[in-house]
Amino acid sequence: MSTLTSWQESELPKVEKQLKDFVQTHAENEQLKESMLYSINAGGKRIRPLLVLATVEFLGHSLTQQVYQVAAALEMVHTYSLIHDDLPAMDDDDLRRGQATNHVVFGDALAILAGDALLTGAFELIAGTKLASYKKNHLLRLLAKSAGARGMVAGQVNDIQSEQQSLSFSELTALHQKKTGALIRFAVVSGGILTGQDEKVLNQLDDFATHLGLAFQIRDDLLDVLATTEQMGKKTQKDELAGKNTYPGLLGIAQAKTALSTELEHAHAILENLSLDGFNSSLLEEIVQLFELERGKE
Amino acid sequence: MSTLTSWQESELPKVEKQLKDFVQTHAENEQLKESMLYSINAGGKRIRPLLVLATVEFLGHSLTQQVYQVAAALEMVHTYSLIHDDLPAMDDDDLRRGQATNHVVFGDALAILAGDALLTGAFELIAGTKLASYKKNHLLRLLAKSAGARGMVAGQVNDIQSEQQSLSFSELTALHQKKTGALIRFAVVSGGILTGQDEKVLNQLDDFATHLGLAFQIRDDLLDVLATTEQMGKKTQKDELAGKNTYPGLLGIAQAKTALSTELEHAHAILENLSLDGFNSSLLEEIVQLFELERGKE
Repeated sequence: MSTLTSWQESELPKVEKQLKDFVQTHAENEQLKESMLYSINAGGKRIRPLLVLATVEFLGHSLTQQVYQVAAALEMVHTYSLIHDDLPAMDDDDLRRGQATNHVVFGDALAILAGDALLTGAFELIAGTKLASYKKNHLLRLLAKSAGARGMVAGQVNDIQSEQQSLSFSELTALHQKKTGALIRFAVVSGGILTGQDEKVLNQLDDFATHLGLAFQIRDDLLDVLATTEQMGKKTQKDELAGKNTYPGLLGIAQAKTALSTELEHAHAILENLSLDGFNSSLLEEIVQLFELERGKE
Repeated sequence: MSTLTSWQESELPKVEKQLKDFVQTHAENEQLKESMLYSINAGGKRIRPLLVLATVEFLGHSLTQQVYQVAAALEMVHTYSLIHDDLPAMDDDDLRRGQATNHVVFGDALAILAGDALLTGAFELIAGTKLASYKKNHLLRLLAKSAGARGMVAGQVNDIQSEQQSLSFSELTALHQKKTGALIRFAVVSGGILTGQDEKVLNQLDDFATHLGLAFQIRDDLLDVLATTEQMGKKTQKDELAGKNTYPGLLGIAQAKTALSTELEHAHAILENLSLDGFNSSLLEEIVQLFELERGKE
């Protein structure tokens, strides 16, 4: 068992506990609670919380309850975005992580409201932690910026608009930097904010996460082409059917693989550079390796 | 022209400016921006921002940019809730304030995303003001609590669940205390937080707003029965058609009018009591009068 695997097994349950405890105690309507918990419990790889935790660890700080809470809040934002994206009015997906999507089980109205409540709850969770007010405020502001009309939501609108249209490489990259990149950047930078890093380190963390976010999307696009439905737990080759712009579609598979490697090399180089400042961790390196195509298919 | 009317005419445009400036500078996608601005510009009475401003004034403080920003953020949350409530999957309303609803103009997907972006933007706007961090944090936490799964969203789920079911008076009141009451309470209490009031005053403000919020809903239900579509700018008598529980439906029109008067008397009494502590304002009193049935129809 790798260091990462055993670490994940001991640390991720603490994030899960924050997620579930928050919804259990902060939702007053039973059906709403059930709908929120359904999508939270649908699992997924928890890549964003892992990045929060691993960044804090990389920066030489211990994992406190506040760190788990920020990681849980971020996963709530991610979960809300999946619920809304899957709606018939949006991507119209019936299957997610091998399970029926929220609106299939609870109906469109409750799915919309469960998403709204998870998004709102993320801000409530961070605002309620025992961190210093200035840190909470920094985190809340960055989370809202990352998730909103200059971040994830803008990326989702771009994505809908660009179906059946051809994007250039730079347009596709700009789209993904918002749609998936913004929350991945928040994950890493929040680790820096939580541990009180200066502006210079925060900027390096942001650069690192930008490359990681692009790698994440290129890999996701490649897996959609290369993997089967069974392996992915969701419909694959759906991108092509939906007329979506993808890296393999734009570059071909071989060049998309190269682009993925290039992003990961950039990410590694920034980590190495940060390590010269005294930061060191094999965990964050191991997480970067999860974004490699072959590792990701395991 | 009443004091309130001239005050509104000089003060509300400053809230409007904050609303529009924020969306103009914080939305990167043009269509998303257009959809957000469409619902913001659809207007409405801006009761919630007015309550923020009037409460600050009642408490003897001047209206600063930060006050207008918090009022604008609250109106963004209210606007998002209207966009999502009007969706075909929810109340399925084509008309709001005399105009086509957001999804009719922009489609369901963009309406969902514009709502998401307005909700997220409200937190970004408050987190970005120049208030002290502890005040921002208090406001952000209370706003999230008021809007989320123990507040407005829970009320909306209750409302959907209770269609074609008979609620008791106390169940109906509990529903509205969440659905419309929670944001009205935030409006008033935020005035107290902005001006640094102690717990005792904040609690009195909260009590005041609770009565005001119920008055608001009883009056809204009464107007739905008594007014015509033309006067209201939206479909009326829709509650009855939808099998919704209403105060006049439960109590009869005469008793619902009495219940409205009772709530307003309670609100007045709390204001008078607060005035003994040295707070005094005819403006907040005038706003309470707006909730009277006859005034509201003007």
